[in-house]
Amino acid sequence: MSEELSIANWFVTYSGTAFEVIGTLAFAISGLLEAARKKLDIVGMAMVTFLAAFGGGTLRDVLLDRRPFFWVENEIWIWAVLVLSALALLFVRTSHLEPTRRATAWPDAIGLGIFTAGGTQIALQAGMPAIVAVIMGVITAVFGGVLRDVVVNEIPRAFVDHQPYSAIAFAGGWVVVLLSAIGASAFVSVVVGAVVITGLRFLAIIFSWRLPTWKL
Amino acid sequence: MSEELSIANWFVTYSGTAFEVIGTLAFAISGLLEAARKKLDIVGMAMVTFLAAFGGGTLRDVLLDRRPFFWVENEIWIWAVLVLSALALLFVRTSHLEPTRRATAWPDAIGLGIFTAGGTQIALQAGMPAIVAVIMGVITAVFGGVLRDVVVNEIPRAFVDHQPYSAIAFAGGWVVVLLSAIGASAFVSVVVGAVVITGLRFLAIIFSWRLPTWKL
Amino acid sequence: MSEELSIANWFVTYSGTAFEVIGTLAFAISGLLEAARKKLDIVGMAMVTFLAAFGGGTLRDVLLDRRPFFWVENEIWIWAVLVLSALALLFVRTSHLEPTRRATAWPDAIGLGIFTAGGTQIALQAGMPAIVAVIMGVITAVFGGVLRDVVVNEIPRAFVDHQPYSAIAFAGGWVVVLLSAIGASAFVSVVVGAVVITGLRFLAIIFSWRLPTWKL
Repeated sequence: MSEELSIANWFVTYSGTAFEVIGTLAFAISGLLEAARKKLDIVGMAMVTFLAAFGGGTLRDVLLDRRPFFWVENEIWIWAVLVLSALALLFVRTSHLEPTRRATAWPDAIGLGIFTAGGTQIALQAGMPAIVAVIMGVITAVFGGVLRDVVVNEIPRAFVDHQPYSAIAFAGGWVVVLLSAIGASAFVSVVVGAVVITGLRFLAIIFSWRLPTWKL
Repeated sequence: MSEELSIANWFVTYSGTAFEVIGTLAFAISGLLEAARKKLDIVGMAMVTFLAAFGGGTLRDVLLDRRPFFWVENEIWIWAVLVLSALALLFVRTSHLEPTRRATAWPDAIGLGIFTAGGTQIALQAGMPAIVAVIMGVITAVFGGVLRDVVVNEIPRAFVDHQPYSAIAFAGGWVVVLLSAIGASAFVSVVVGAVVITGLRFLAIIFSWRLPTWKL
Repeated sequence: MSEELSIANWFVTYSGTAFEVIGTLAFAISGLLEAARKKLDIVGMAMVTFLAAFGGGTLRDVLLDRRPFFWVENEIWIWAVLVLSALALLFVRTSHLEPTRRATAWPDAIGLGIFTAGGTQIALQAGMPAIVAVIMGVITAVFGGVLRDVVVNEIPRAFVDHQPYSAIAFAGGWVVVLLSAIGASAFVSVVVGAVVITGLRFLAIIFSWRLPTWKL
């Protein structure tokens, strides 16, 4: 392998991991904020943070009957959630909640892209039909937040806020499916899918896009 | 095979499928109505509709460790849910909700019968003991509605409305178990079980049967 | 085997089973009380009681991909839940709820000990890393109560009451892991772990220990 190629490889591998870390942290922080808002104790906070970060991928793996789970293979992440929860208990104040939520919308968009695209690809490799693979991708990225909200007794934000979030994930899942169908490698499909989803989500935040509403 | 027999076979097969379609649509519509009542967006509506229609059978299959799920093998149903959700967003008005709910009580009773009886039979074939098979039947027919209600932050209707719904399913599951135990074919057990459950549920609606209540 | 040893064996085996029965009944009763408080009907009561008693172990087994479930192998427990629910409907009065809840805090502590220690050991034997095994132990003992609360539309008590409950389970799970790591038998690890957890929980009740709270 030429030196440039191995540098490119190194860059892609590590930036991929970096984006995964960014996305997972953003999802975990959404759990922390929800726990703080509800004044959960340290145990509740750790559990809601854990659900927000890993609930979606875990549900996908249960549905696809895949083992081991991400957090079983990467136990360091469990420790990260516990440390984050303890730090939050010490340092988070009410005045931090709303600014943090707004600030994490951007890394959260990265998580939406990378986990939808990755989840769709995993489901395709498990032999799922296209529409099922796209749904598995959406579940991977969105159901951590759904479980987070259900467990603290809120209607899932993803179901009621009329923002294009899961809808963008759904559209982007099809990019992964189509690229796979025309013979692109798993790697290219996931990267392009993730970039499309994250890009659309950035646009949705910047321009305050809204989903159509009921004319009840 | 004589011509009459093959006509009978044809009739039974297709009417079975027709009843399944009727039951699934009734369950899906219960999700749509709940989503409309809570003013969920299109994404939330599709997800709650999906949960209401397929959540029970999916939970049963996860518990029994069966794959593939019904909606993985019959992906056309996923499209049906998406189209239904889009149509509902366009055409459903507040004044439609209550009359639709009342009108769908009847096809819903067909779904209760066919999915309880079918779920019980599937669990028997998976080697479950009688009481477990009956519970799996009840889960198949009832837990879609339970998940639908939990996710939109309501106490499951099946747990609080004091109507004989799951109780009828539970009783009818035993019909399937008993028929199997005395050597009836899977087909006969399911058909008789489904007819008993749907018939009892019709009577419960007509005569407004109630479950005994707390004397707290 | 000497006579004393076989008597000791007999005693340990049966007292182990007795503690399991005590713990399971305490968990089931917590479900009954919650159902009574929410005035669920008989069906809802049976389901919430079942979730409270077996939800945690069932979730652990789904995550570890273990079958059969405890209640599939021991169907007598399903009948016990049904009979308990029917008896509760006949005999429980509003004035019983709070005293029963206080009285069951003690057998509940036994359940917390035995099911956390047992769940941790089961996960270790399934090859899980230490931290995952401890979390599986906590899930076994605590998530029945979490599911019980989520399904009746309450924020899980284990997440908000600022009492050391899951936190004690978490600490005690490490006792099981450490004993296993230094070569103790599964039996010794579970017994010591359970005694430590139940003992700490007794102390927490007696001295009204509290978890640190938010300084929001």
